[in-house]
Amino acid sequence: MIDLHLIGIGTGNPDHLTRQAEAAMNAADLILLPRKGQAKSDLIDLRRTLCATVLTKPVRVVEFDLPVRADSSDYLAAVGDWHDAIAATWAAQIARHLPHGGRLALLVWGDPSLYDSTLRIAERLQTGGMAMRVHVVPGITSLQALTAAHAIPLNTLGAPIVVTTGRRLRDDGWPEAADTIAVMLDGACAFTTLDPEAVLIWWGAYLGMAHQALIAGPLAEAGPQIVTRRAALRAEHGWIMDTYLLRRERSAA
Amino acid sequence: MIDLHLIGIGTGNPDHLTRQAEAAMNAADLILLPRKGQAKSDLIDLRRTLCATVLTKPVRVVEFDLPVRADSSDYLAAVGDWHDAIAATWAAQIARHLPHGGRLALLVWGDPSLYDSTLRIAERLQTGGMAMRVHVVPGITSLQALTAAHAIPLNTLGAPIVVTTGRRLRDDGWPEAADTIAVMLDGACAFTTLDPEAVLIWWGAYLGMAHQALIAGPLAEAGPQIVTRRAALRAEHGWIMDTYLLRRERSAA
Repeated sequence: MIDLHLIGIGTGNPDHLTRQAEAAMNAADLILLPRKGQAKSDLIDLRRTLCATVLTKPVRVVEFDLPVRADSSDYLAAVGDWHDAIAATWAAQIARHLPHGGRLALLVWGDPSLYDSTLRIAERLQTGGMAMRVHVVPGITSLQALTAAHAIPLNTLGAPIVVTTGRRLRDDGWPEAADTIAVMLDGACAFTTLDPEAVLIWWGAYLGMAHQALIAGPLAEAGPQIVTRRAALRAEHGWIMDTYLLRRERSAA
Repeated sequence: MIDLHLIGIGTGNPDHLTRQAEAAMNAADLILLPRKGQAKSDLIDLRRTLCATVLTKPVRVVEFDLPVRADSSDYLAAVGDWHDAIAATWAAQIARHLPHGGRLALLVWGDPSLYDSTLRIAERLQTGGMAMRVHVVPGITSLQALTAAHAIPLNTLGAPIVVTTGRRLRDDGWPEAADTIAVMLDGACAFTTLDPEAVLIWWGAYLGMAHQALIAGPLAEAGPQIVTRRAALRAEHGWIMDTYLLRRERSAA
């Protein structure tokens, strides 16, 4: 039996780690760290640093290469194939390093519930017949890191929020359900497709890290600044992770 | 100058506390703990326990009585008056215990950004002329505690989520923007006003606490169970805090 612990580690600031996350890391028989290629090497470095900082017990830490997602016009199909490939990679690592079962920990950026696929990949292994119990340790999401960095509330008083992706914002426009939208996984500045009139934006990149960058203001002025800054930061670091909040001003109570 | 630190403490499980929260509590000159009346005495007890567990420095901890919100048909106006009253109470405590300024910490249930009013109350003091800098320490929200307890993702693959209140769900019905809805601040089981056909619910109360309660399943069967269980728990403990996730089955990819 494998006890899989999916541990939310927050957004890169080791101080965002919870006591529960530290305990779960130290109680593991094996921690698997995925390598995602050269460009995002900061991320594996951060996970290595986290292990070095937090582990007080002799926990085995093994790095493995994550399969690469195919470029495809059919996004959902490409993601599905990619998750199958990752599940196969996990299975190989488990067969090799935990052949008799035990506690396996994976360090998940942010929180395992929010725009993350580890739960879906674990389900593939269970469906495929692996005896596995899944445990989740919640972590600070990039949305919380964003609102904390700007010291703003996510919602206005008693009002709803839509959490969505750059892709959906670009395809579907502003969702009618809310005057506040939190946008994640946006690689292409979908906010540039909106009418900026009376819209405010709070943007953050590398949240919680030493090189955190923040921009806020009316979308008409802040939007172009973000596009320029984002391109420069991406060129400088080789990768970028960012997120933002949009609010229609009429509801900024 | 007052440096106000709003510290997200998660949902009642001391293990949800982050390293940053622990450090901010220990660095404070004063921690103010609100008393909300007899019924929710578990909550002040939890905050007291948290202070006793976490504080390794001689930080002054002062309890004060929170004003009570008036019952009113005009919800937003009643909340506005209540926040004014709380701001006045904070100002009185600050004048008494930190007359020369310093670091003031408030322990916020969940995360200060999500359906919490401390940021809005702090803004009232700043607008009223108090020299105050606001710092936010993010915490684990009840939504993350809920999805972790059920080991489920919040969103389906690449799809949006609406986060809303019981009041809005009851008044506005299912929001068109998403097939997943997270509902907070629901004192009256607003899910009973929905057509339960093809809807799944994941519910949790007292998340992270010793008496955590969980129910999940098709809304048609789980909904009535939740109504009954919720009433019994509320009678037993004198108060209840709960939250839930609804998903239309057609999107349960």
